[in-house]
Amino acid sequence: MAIVDTFRFTDAEYETRLTRVRAAMEARGIDTLITSDPSNMAWLTGYDGWSFYVHQCVIVGPTGAPVWFGREQDAQGALRTVYMNEPDLIGYPDYFVQSSERHPMDYLAAKLTERGWHTGRIGVEMENYWFSAKGFQSLSAGLPNDLIDVTNVINWLRGPKSPAELDRMRKAGKIVERMHARIVEKIEPGMRKCDLVADIYDASLRYDADWGFGGDYPAIVPLLPSGADAAAPHLTWDDKKMATGEGTFFEIAGCFRRYHCPLSRTIFLGTPTQKFIDAEKAVLEGMEAGLEAAKVGNLCEDIAIAFFNVLQKYDIVKDNRTGYPIGLSYPPDWGERTCSLRPGDRTVLKEGMTFHFMTGLWMQDMGFEITESIAIGENGPECLANVPRKMVVKD
Amino acid sequence: MAIVDTFRFTDAEYETRLTRVRAAMEARGIDTLITSDPSNMAWLTGYDGWSFYVHQCVIVGPTGAPVWFGREQDAQGALRTVYMNEPDLIGYPDYFVQSSERHPMDYLAAKLTERGWHTGRIGVEMENYWFSAKGFQSLSAGLPNDLIDVTNVINWLRGPKSPAELDRMRKAGKIVERMHARIVEKIEPGMRKCDLVADIYDASLRYDADWGFGGDYPAIVPLLPSGADAAAPHLTWDDKKMATGEGTFFEIAGCFRRYHCPLSRTIFLGTPTQKFIDAEKAVLEGMEAGLEAAKVGNLCEDIAIAFFNVLQKYDIVKDNRTGYPIGLSYPPDWGERTCSLRPGDRTVLKEGMTFHFMTGLWMQDMGFEITESIAIGENGPECLANVPRKMVVKD
Repeated sequence: MAIVDTFRFTDAEYETRLTRVRAAMEARGIDTLITSDPSNMAWLTGYDGWSFYVHQCVIVGPTGAPVWFGREQDAQGALRTVYMNEPDLIGYPDYFVQSSERHPMDYLAAKLTERGWHTGRIGVEMENYWFSAKGFQSLSAGLPNDLIDVTNVINWLRGPKSPAELDRMRKAGKIVERMHARIVEKIEPGMRKCDLVADIYDASLRYDADWGFGGDYPAIVPLLPSGADAAAPHLTWDDKKMATGEGTFFEIAGCFRRYHCPLSRTIFLGTPTQKFIDAEKAVLEGMEAGLEAAKVGNLCEDIAIAFFNVLQKYDIVKDNRTGYPIGLSYPPDWGERTCSLRPGDRTVLKEGMTFHFMTGLWMQDMGFEITESIAIGENGPECLANVPRKMVVKD
Repeated sequence: MAIVDTFRFTDAEYETRLTRVRAAMEARGIDTLITSDPSNMAWLTGYDGWSFYVHQCVIVGPTGAPVWFGREQDAQGALRTVYMNEPDLIGYPDYFVQSSERHPMDYLAAKLTERGWHTGRIGVEMENYWFSAKGFQSLSAGLPNDLIDVTNVINWLRGPKSPAELDRMRKAGKIVERMHARIVEKIEPGMRKCDLVADIYDASLRYDADWGFGGDYPAIVPLLPSGADAAAPHLTWDDKKMATGEGTFFEIAGCFRRYHCPLSRTIFLGTPTQKFIDAEKAVLEGMEAGLEAAKVGNLCEDIAIAFFNVLQKYDIVKDNRTGYPIGLSYPPDWGERTCSLRPGDRTVLKEGMTFHFMTGLWMQDMGFEITESIAIGENGPECLANVPRKMVVKD
């Protein structure tokens, strides 16, 4: 149904994705796959909307197009965004919404049964924000066989990006470039953090006539903790004034039609302390080493080990992973939740895989982030955005 | 631990909340309650951060303060936001994050066992975005007894707001007033929707010297579909130009320190069609009837029935609920997910309960929203924001 078409890829691209999903299902002996991850739903069908706060999913049955399943009122949104036709949409009545007596998964079980898709091996994503423990119990109760865990089966397929997907990520890269430029332009001691966040949103959203596009909402709000609070990576902003003598990291992403380009930088107001200068030196050198290792045929851990080796030289301990795959995403996370850039992860790097090389340091009394988003290529990585790779110092 | 204190309520308020939770546990014979809902976690402890994309929870054991459980790096954020002390925080190592071999709930089971909280009746929220089917399986496997479903037990306690909470919601009301005023000021035919969204964010965030505060991020991004797309309630924006002859509804919320005041209005560019004029008349009259019924001692359904009766008079069918409780929230939803304003919901209205009276109409080829957020009082409702209650027409 082509009503709103700007969000969608070509039908051929969706058909290719479906074929790849069916092959993965066959390899695991799965007859019907149910995905509740909104990113997987969008990747498979084009579905887009802020409706993941109620139960919804896409069903890949043994034959035919994917089937969208969701709240009846959201079927209107599906009609406008998916590449399938109206008979491939199932809306459940509103009295299933947040009811303590009825569960949308009861309705799904009945609909699967109507289509004859209730038998055989049915896969669900057991580890997903949007498939609750109760949803699992309700669906299980309505179907004859035990459900099979297919967590991340589709997420893995999303790893290597198509040219059309990379194009979106480069556009997201343009947006994040503008966001960082705006921060450098606006930040100053005494500025209230909520005002800077308003500037960041402005730079992430507005239409640019030269580019011919504007921005979408990133899957995570801007994170910009200062001083000792920056030891805590996931605090959000307040309305206090920023102070001289403090470092602030900016963990933000540009987003274009749900595709993300995250990229972090650190700004010090006043004269940076030695700790910040040391962190910058170690991170920049470590990033060079990591980027050197980011090429087709190497492993995820190769990037991480190269980076960690440099940190070690500088006596810096980072006890968390140093990156994750990125692309199409909905809140609460812009990662794909498959491989990680960490020692022990022996995932082979392929052409077109995209990562946030997350070289952030969160220490006892400070935080420091200079990161890049990259696409893996035959001869090395492409940086998806071009933001000066250094700590910014401003008085 | 008082490092960042702006977000927190008084310790006494948290103690009162804990006492109420323990009473609810006792009534259900629950020895230990585990809540994964970030809103419940914040309400119980003050914890605030964008970390709900990994497993975390607050544990209310048989005795003592609540215990925060989350990723080790987020314990730094907990230290800065919760009212408890450091021994009441448990951080799990990073190799539990998004691993296919280890699950944070394995670690939680071990920690409960260490504290002797692994026996007895343990409650978990089976229907929650952040407690996955896999998390349920992992935790179950690590504990001797079957887990008990305590979905919404805390959410129900959050229903009636304290004076300090109402104060935050009124501040959120100020913010949403400014957001709507900005929309009316800025909107015009030919304006790109992403640019209007930038203006909306600006109005939702900036510090106001008269108020003495700035804004926080709402749990849902602005929804502002136009024309026939407004039949779909949850489409997000694009970068196209807005056109004369189309109606657009704005479903937005002000947010102050995680407390929300949602409020929707509809704007028509050009001369409104009869359908819009009719919808406005029916909704405004229906709202008056509904607000009349919104008082202590009445039932949730009384508000809905009063509203639906008026719609019926105008031959308008609305086949979804007409409101839900609101307050403290994190994405993906600013509702509390307990009662609903719909026929059949016989929840008794109490002083200080707060609702989004969601009188939106989504029809075949248009959408229309004029809504209010209200606090229930002895003699009727308090509207938490003051935005002219009418359709705005602009050329």
